[in-house]
Amino acid sequence: MDGDEPGTIRPGGRTARVRTAVLRAAGDALAEQGFDHLDLADVARRADVGKTTVYRRWGSVTGLVADLLTDMAEQSLPRARTGSLLGDLKANARLVRKTLTDPRQGPLFTAVIAAATCDARTAEALHRFYETRIKEWAPCVDEAIDRGELPAGTDAEEVIRAVSAPLYYRLLASGDPLDAATADRAAEAAEAAARAGVFVR
Amino acid sequence: MDGDEPGTIRPGGRTARVRTAVLRAAGDALAEQGFDHLDLADVARRADVGKTTVYRRWGSVTGLVADLLTDMAEQSLPRARTGSLLGDLKANARLVRKTLTDPRQGPLFTAVIAAATCDARTAEALHRFYETRIKEWAPCVDEAIDRGELPAGTDAEEVIRAVSAPLYYRLLASGDPLDAATADRAAEAAEAAARAGVFVR
Repeated sequence: MDGDEPGTIRPGGRTARVRTAVLRAAGDALAEQGFDHLDLADVARRADVGKTTVYRRWGSVTGLVADLLTDMAEQSLPRARTGSLLGDLKANARLVRKTLTDPRQGPLFTAVIAAATCDARTAEALHRFYETRIKEWAPCVDEAIDRGELPAGTDAEEVIRAVSAPLYYRLLASGDPLDAATADRAAEAAEAAARAGVFVR
Repeated sequence: MDGDEPGTIRPGGRTARVRTAVLRAAGDALAEQGFDHLDLADVARRADVGKTTVYRRWGSVTGLVADLLTDMAEQSLPRARTGSLLGDLKANARLVRKTLTDPRQGPLFTAVIAAATCDARTAEALHRFYETRIKEWAPCVDEAIDRGELPAGTDAEEVIRAVSAPLYYRLLASGDPLDAATADRAAEAAEAAARAGVFVR
């Protein structure tokens, strides 16, 4: 707590508030204009924060995007617990689809993925983001192994990757629609392959 | 034939030779420097072709990349015919992996995919490229249906998309390695899901 507003309950204080405002502004700018036009001075203006503060704290556009990805991983929803593997994987596929087709989140992810193709630091931050999300959902698969739904030795993280892959392929490569049926089919395909033992290490 | 070299056998003549040289130079430039630095004058220089010719024929960087993608689709290898669905899908997965990990083709694809995220004409050309490739390989699946390996009504193109998806997901999103085992597993997962009826329309 900074102590400048006695009696109010705030999570984190001024430093946390500045970070929240700057990361929101950075996400807005990325979603609207893409990575190439991201500019620390513009982000400071949008966030109503001093330019010096932004430069001192994040240093560069890639530093800011890396912190944004860390925050996105931290703020992401916890995994589903539906009681069945297919239910959990469908919840995961629907969440990924919802994110990628969201008017703000979709362009934001696309911009960061494009930036990662030509910037190593952004690529590292992006890979850490997926690592965090995959580890969050992997226990769905481990629980299915415990319940006897899947063969022992199934690589839980590989099953979770298999759910996301068809959605990202459509978004970034083939351009086919990202409809609800596609999300459900991605979950069903990963589950069928896992049951068949394809992901056993 | 242009008729300026009687007695020599050339496929297409001067216009075709110019196109080949320019598209090769464009591919080299894209692979080395990415889309943002692609420049028609630089491509003309690399191809040893007049700048005016390049501007007149392709008009813009996006026009040139669209033609490059058309040519890549036309020049791509025909599908495998191994006699089994799993054999065919593994051949497809290995070809996609070989392309994406190739020192020239990999960066070229990555550059074009990144460009497609912020340019509608490049995105259209990219989608046409995948449409062509998916249609080339889809008969593997139709033949497997005829042989009784897969349920009737299986969406052949969706099976082919399912083979590529995990490889593109690793390349563009998660950053996990694109090793030979990953390619084979992508084919096995698509086959298992197809056998389970997941891709029946």
